[in-house]
Amino acid sequence: MTRTVLESKTRTVTIGFDEPFCVIGERINPTGRKKLAAELEAGDFSTVEKDALEQVACGAMVLDVNAGVVYNSNPDPNQTEPPLMRQVIELVQGLVDVPLCIDSSVPAALEAGLAAAQGRPLLNSVTGEEERLERVLPLVRKYNVPVVAISNDDTGISEDPDVRFAVAKKIVERAADFGIPACDIVVDPLVMPVGAMASAGRQVFALVRRLRDELGVNTTCGASNISFGLPQRHGVNAAFLPMAIAAGMTSAIMNPVRPVEMKAIRAANLLMNHDANGADWIRFSRVLDGIAAGASFAEASTAVTAAGSGRRRRRG
Amino acid sequence: MTRTVLESKTRTVTIGFDEPFCVIGERINPTGRKKLAAELEAGDFSTVEKDALEQVACGAMVLDVNAGVVYNSNPDPNQTEPPLMRQVIELVQGLVDVPLCIDSSVPAALEAGLAAAQGRPLLNSVTGEEERLERVLPLVRKYNVPVVAISNDDTGISEDPDVRFAVAKKIVERAADFGIPACDIVVDPLVMPVGAMASAGRQVFALVRRLRDELGVNTTCGASNISFGLPQRHGVNAAFLPMAIAAGMTSAIMNPVRPVEMKAIRAANLLMNHDANGADWIRFSRVLDGIAAGASFAEASTAVTAAGSGRRRRRG
Repeated sequence: MTRTVLESKTRTVTIGFDEPFCVIGERINPTGRKKLAAELEAGDFSTVEKDALEQVACGAMVLDVNAGVVYNSNPDPNQTEPPLMRQVIELVQGLVDVPLCIDSSVPAALEAGLAAAQGRPLLNSVTGEEERLERVLPLVRKYNVPVVAISNDDTGISEDPDVRFAVAKKIVERAADFGIPACDIVVDPLVMPVGAMASAGRQVFALVRRLRDELGVNTTCGASNISFGLPQRHGVNAAFLPMAIAAGMTSAIMNPVRPVEMKAIRAANLLMNHDANGADWIRFSRVLDGIAAGASFAEASTAVTAAGSGRRRRRG
Repeated sequence: MTRTVLESKTRTVTIGFDEPFCVIGERINPTGRKKLAAELEAGDFSTVEKDALEQVACGAMVLDVNAGVVYNSNPDPNQTEPPLMRQVIELVQGLVDVPLCIDSSVPAALEAGLAAAQGRPLLNSVTGEEERLERVLPLVRKYNVPVVAISNDDTGISEDPDVRFAVAKKIVERAADFGIPACDIVVDPLVMPVGAMASAGRQVFALVRRLRDELGVNTTCGASNISFGLPQRHGVNAAFLPMAIAAGMTSAIMNPVRPVEMKAIRAANLLMNHDANGADWIRFSRVLDGIAAGASFAEASTAVTAAGSGRRRRRG
């Protein structure tokens, strides 16, 4: 039974075949968010604070932290990312108590993040590229953390799912050479847009099943890729996530502030028998009632959590 | 490749592993609808007419017709159901051109329906009960129609999915004795409420996979059973349907007038690569836009269909 254990200072989150789906909040990421990048360059962290609190309120169990800025004042990410990564991690850890996912393509930023993070963060990511394997796996070993393994290699991203499986297998085997167990590899099989490749959905479902059955690894994905370019994207995402969960997908890096997708995941947890007595669904149904009454998702979630604590206190 | 072929007077609908999910509209059914039963007893068919038109507008590909009334004036369904079944079928066939699903527990009503229906209707249903097998399978053979096989028998409905599989297997074998091929059996593995039985979802997904792999049959279900007794039922249904489709379920008897469930099914068709070029999803996204602008589901669907025909005419 594969279990990938993540920790914050005081909280443990397990990604696993018999666990509720692990939602990794993707919002703290200046890549493609010019306004956020400019704010960070100016030393303004208010959006990061808001994103951290809102994502956790809406149900993110882990927060991805990416500090991939390109400053006007200094365009070299090898210089700018490591200190910013440390700064953002310290800020986020002061606000919320969930495990972090340290996300960078700059190895020095990964290492700065590992030094700054409390507990046992998830490292994001290694690929099948030789240089990347040789650079990242020693960090994984040194800090004893789990790592996201993206199934592309020096030849790029293959459209053939058998090739992507083979790349994942290579990473798992190489990790084993470093003494890293399969339970600490979370494979991202790469989700293609179904609007561009009609077989994209079925490919991922089949790949997830193989990764689980043959390699015994947990899996993750950038869930919203599936609907890229399509109208009514949330509707596509909200069907994709339950289907991927039924196939065995155990986590996703996604925007948790969208109630449609989060509702689909919580219903899928219930249907996978990963929600004891339906307690989480019943709690979440009250959040949906709050949204229907006009609250934002975060507000409704916070109100239901507060009411729940109140009830527990009264009982005690 | 299992294909169950249904026909109306002029239209063919195929239930199959490589076909879009077949939505069988459940609304024309006075069981548990006292107001409708009273209307029918009074000779008022306006609700039936509305239900037929609305369900087809919203995307039902087949209409279930059940005439299971208990009249105040005559409580014997063996007398009341057969003529009412014939009357309703003739009415519905005059209004819409989709194949029908003739639904009764009264064999004489099934036979009256078979005599009245044009094309190749689906018969609903046979079970593993001896008396029912001996009574219904000859009708299936005589009229050369496909049949829904519900996996309960003389011992009732088993909570054990292996027993339900065995019952389905027995029905398929018995049908073969009558010369009825497996492609004309659509098995209903029986969906239990997940609120009462936590393993209900996983049971069905595993059963559907087995029925498909080992017996080569199409499957159906009363989809909304899964959420019985839970709050926010549509959210549970809208995750259940894509998960069941990913497991191989090929049809459901359900309320097609609910856009949440129909959206989930259309997204699942896209993700299963059963929607060439995403044409149906793109069309449906315009229906969702219409709903967002204030139209009812049926109104928005009708408007998009009309606009589509207009475009085709202009091109031609």
